[in-house]
Amino acid sequence: MCRWLAYSGSAVPIEDLLYKPEHSLIDQSLHSQLGAETTNGDGFGIGWYGTAETPGVFHSVEPAWNDRNLRNLAAHIESPLVFAHIRASSGSAIQQTNCHPFRYGHWLWMHNGVIHEFPQVKRDLALAVDPSLYPEIEGSTDSELFFFLALTLGLEDDPPAAVEAAVGLIEETGRRHGVEHPIQMTVATSDGSNVWAFRYSSERQSRSLFYSTNVPTLRLLHPELEVLQGLSEESRLIVSEPLRDLPGAWNEVPESSYGLVCEGQDELRPFTPRAPSRPTAVRATP
Amino acid sequence: MCRWLAYSGSAVPIEDLLYKPEHSLIDQSLHSQLGAETTNGDGFGIGWYGTAETPGVFHSVEPAWNDRNLRNLAAHIESPLVFAHIRASSGSAIQQTNCHPFRYGHWLWMHNGVIHEFPQVKRDLALAVDPSLYPEIEGSTDSELFFFLALTLGLEDDPPAAVEAAVGLIEETGRRHGVEHPIQMTVATSDGSNVWAFRYSSERQSRSLFYSTNVPTLRLLHPELEVLQGLSEESRLIVSEPLRDLPGAWNEVPESSYGLVCEGQDELRPFTPRAPSRPTAVRATP
Amino acid sequence: MCRWLAYSGSAVPIEDLLYKPEHSLIDQSLHSQLGAETTNGDGFGIGWYGTAETPGVFHSVEPAWNDRNLRNLAAHIESPLVFAHIRASSGSAIQQTNCHPFRYGHWLWMHNGVIHEFPQVKRDLALAVDPSLYPEIEGSTDSELFFFLALTLGLEDDPPAAVEAAVGLIEETGRRHGVEHPIQMTVATSDGSNVWAFRYSSERQSRSLFYSTNVPTLRLLHPELEVLQGLSEESRLIVSEPLRDLPGAWNEVPESSYGLVCEGQDELRPFTPRAPSRPTAVRATP
Amino acid sequence: MCRWLAYSGSAVPIEDLLYKPEHSLIDQSLHSQLGAETTNGDGFGIGWYGTAETPGVFHSVEPAWNDRNLRNLAAHIESPLVFAHIRASSGSAIQQTNCHPFRYGHWLWMHNGVIHEFPQVKRDLALAVDPSLYPEIEGSTDSELFFFLALTLGLEDDPPAAVEAAVGLIEETGRRHGVEHPIQMTVATSDGSNVWAFRYSSERQSRSLFYSTNVPTLRLLHPELEVLQGLSEESRLIVSEPLRDLPGAWNEVPESSYGLVCEGQDELRPFTPRAPSRPTAVRATP
Repeated sequence: MCRWLAYSGSAVPIEDLLYKPEHSLIDQSLHSQLGAETTNGDGFGIGWYGTAETPGVFHSVEPAWNDRNLRNLAAHIESPLVFAHIRASSGSAIQQTNCHPFRYGHWLWMHNGVIHEFPQVKRDLALAVDPSLYPEIEGSTDSELFFFLALTLGLEDDPPAAVEAAVGLIEETGRRHGVEHPIQMTVATSDGSNVWAFRYSSERQSRSLFYSTNVPTLRLLHPELEVLQGLSEESRLIVSEPLRDLPGAWNEVPESSYGLVCEGQDELRPFTPRAPSRPTAVRATP
Repeated sequence: MCRWLAYSGSAVPIEDLLYKPEHSLIDQSLHSQLGAETTNGDGFGIGWYGTAETPGVFHSVEPAWNDRNLRNLAAHIESPLVFAHIRASSGSAIQQTNCHPFRYGHWLWMHNGVIHEFPQVKRDLALAVDPSLYPEIEGSTDSELFFFLALTLGLEDDPPAAVEAAVGLIEETGRRHGVEHPIQMTVATSDGSNVWAFRYSSERQSRSLFYSTNVPTLRLLHPELEVLQGLSEESRLIVSEPLRDLPGAWNEVPESSYGLVCEGQDELRPFTPRAPSRPTAVRATP
Repeated sequence: MCRWLAYSGSAVPIEDLLYKPEHSLIDQSLHSQLGAETTNGDGFGIGWYGTAETPGVFHSVEPAWNDRNLRNLAAHIESPLVFAHIRASSGSAIQQTNCHPFRYGHWLWMHNGVIHEFPQVKRDLALAVDPSLYPEIEGSTDSELFFFLALTLGLEDDPPAAVEAAVGLIEETGRRHGVEHPIQMTVATSDGSNVWAFRYSSERQSRSLFYSTNVPTLRLLHPELEVLQGLSEESRLIVSEPLRDLPGAWNEVPESSYGLVCEGQDELRPFTPRAPSRPTAVRATP
Repeated sequence: MCRWLAYSGSAVPIEDLLYKPEHSLIDQSLHSQLGAETTNGDGFGIGWYGTAETPGVFHSVEPAWNDRNLRNLAAHIESPLVFAHIRASSGSAIQQTNCHPFRYGHWLWMHNGVIHEFPQVKRDLALAVDPSLYPEIEGSTDSELFFFLALTLGLEDDPPAAVEAAVGLIEETGRRHGVEHPIQMTVATSDGSNVWAFRYSSERQSRSLFYSTNVPTLRLLHPELEVLQGLSEESRLIVSEPLRDLPGAWNEVPESSYGLVCEGQDELRPFTPRAPSRPTAVRATP
């Protein structure tokens, strides 16, 4: 079981997100409290939006807790929108091309969970990827293929609808192969301005997902925390496990729903998978 | 451009093949003389038949010339049938799952060369792989996909016919996408008893391939070389570049041909690609 | 806290030691039961005596539980004397030169524990290493320096006395720098014929160490276990944690003692550190 | 033989220095023209001064030419003072702690060359390092030890004098061990404001070193190059090999001399090694 974190808000050094909180993501990589597996040592990655045209990505197969490059980069890179992911492999190889977040153009994607019986359904799902996107698949994970299905089905135009269609397709394909519960997931994706976070599983027992209380409320609850003064009112964290034990700070994303973090009012809505009628037809050829 | 070596004969420590010859494969990884690229630092691998049921494989993405594990293993493992390969990437990621030799069951496979315009033809070729084999593909190279096409087309039953069919399919697919010269290759494959080595390219300007003169002749030519006394008469090396400058020791495999090294008489025959009429129908479902 | 295993007995495939037992060393790397840290993902190594002049060593900084090369090598290498070690770093870098077992000539050495306040005492200890041995130090760990101190103080001639002298020197040096409990250790070392295993700590609360009951007794206790029929009567395992829950199979090495596993009668004796009067004078210049 | 580049001037994305020039450092890693070795595949590193208190450092043991993380970071990090180094090992292990540039506090250091017969002199040189600095040595190279000797001998106060003293000490130590030509070097070091670059060898046949012509002159010579309009007048590159074949752009640093690149007038002065009379006494205890 993986761990991930998505941050959107005032530009902060990445180390403030990864290393400074109590029970930080780096700590979690060694000692998970809510997870199915106790260790997350099968590689990690960070993605961030910065000065270049496409988001930056850094992947490594060393254990995150001892990676010196990560510590250096986290101290030197500031960003208003950061993804971080720590991997526990469910079978595919430990290699950089299998590390999250995955990137395509302006988009980042990361996933905690699994497509069950992936070897059985992999070929059918790969065939559903748009032929123009197919050569861009670099690794061998279920999570990256899931991303390319969502891209095929319109992620760049309507992310919630595209993810609902991709999950519908995965469920339909899995059930055709006799898989009872085809998917387990929390997913985050971003175009550099907005972050969408999804929580769903075919058996309706999805892995945990939390979002932080808004900053003005947090300031009222915890006037003792100076760090909150420096953040913009719209800063928001979404995490697979709460980062620190701060009463009132964390809210669980409900089963089968998704949230949108954006400029203006954030939203929380129900998530309903829908298999596409013509799987590969949605994406217009560029 | 990669480099490779296949050895069949008396059991020898792998280090005798990799490190001891002048102009050894390890030397070649630093200073190639015949190759298109001057450096082969994008990972390497060895495969060998030994005591376990399936052949052993060791892959690494460190430069071969400084790899301490390789040196240790080469000193400790003896085998009568050894493959070694040093990679210069033509684009796909540097990771262990992209290192040769590839293994499937009792079979090993390694390739020097390229499927031209691979991103364009990759999806069509992947679709031609037998669905039962498809989930076994671990990496992202043209070379591994080529192996799985050959397996699909009967490698385990008739290796030369299967490779001719796979090359025919690759050429047909490439030309359908407007690629003038779809493939460039020297390939070695083995089932643990026999070694087949192929030299071919669509433009008939194939990369170099040599086999060693038989041991009795070598002993007559070079009575001063004690090492030759210890080898069985049937020991044979096949290499992408000659290992040492030994007059009379190396014979070029002719353009568009293949050799079979086996117990009894070795053979050298013409190689003629033939596109299969029904690409995925050859391999019986197990 | 690291984990290690030493095996001496009938030649067995290394995979029988590493992967096949319930609660194997590989399992322990993910879920330790007795250890201080819950994860051992900072590299691992194996050492074995085989066909070459010096023992073989394989080191890797990938997590052991997912290392494909380790799985392959373990299936292909048989040995009558095997060391295996899984590392949890106490601070020094994650790199192959810091992985155990360390090798010098015919000797292997591995350590679970720590020299406390190592940065403070490192220089003094390094100065005590024989100048002819000093350039052979390759990494930056306390454990390797401890090995070279033992070599300096006569490990090749009288291992228990040399380790007692090295520990005496480390304790004396630590206390001179104000360290209350300078060392915590279980150590295994071998010359290829015998294995010595030490359990000691300055505070007399040493990490756990167990040896297996002799094979004839095990056969009487567990006639249902076929694997015991294939082992020689003198086969013996020494481990930091018991491998499987087999009543009567495991005996704790007492606090402040060491064992010798050899041809003939094994021994268990008290361990008493003794600081050498002239630290660097013991080893004769070669 | 390594390759390095030091840049000081207007803040630029690191990729403009590493990837964009013809015959860039990354190209050189594959095809060196002036070097002794043809390949530089034994790891690389970059260092830069940015937003954090200490300079950032990124080290990797993968071949630079195919490293995806390097490409990403180079696109996302801008800096006015950048070091980059590509390593060809002269014997010590390929590991991140042996990659240049080395960092201590605000200082960066990189070296092309070798301390000859390093195993023989290593212990004596290590003993000359200030005891308070000794525990900060992380790797096993001659180059890092050279850095710590310079720090011991006053690098932070008077860099040219400290490097002259360190080289004097290395030459004296080498000659005491019978080494005819103890050192070969080009070195760059920086405190974040100034860059010092040294060219020297005991045999007076030092490796090449070049600095770029000042920007106003370059603009007159090459009005066709738009890139020059964006650079500040004081921007300067120092390189082990010229980056592109631009007539009038590159000036060789003379044998046995050093340059200082700083705000105001740059300087070029003779370099004269001087062995310190009391090696470890110069650095005041902090």
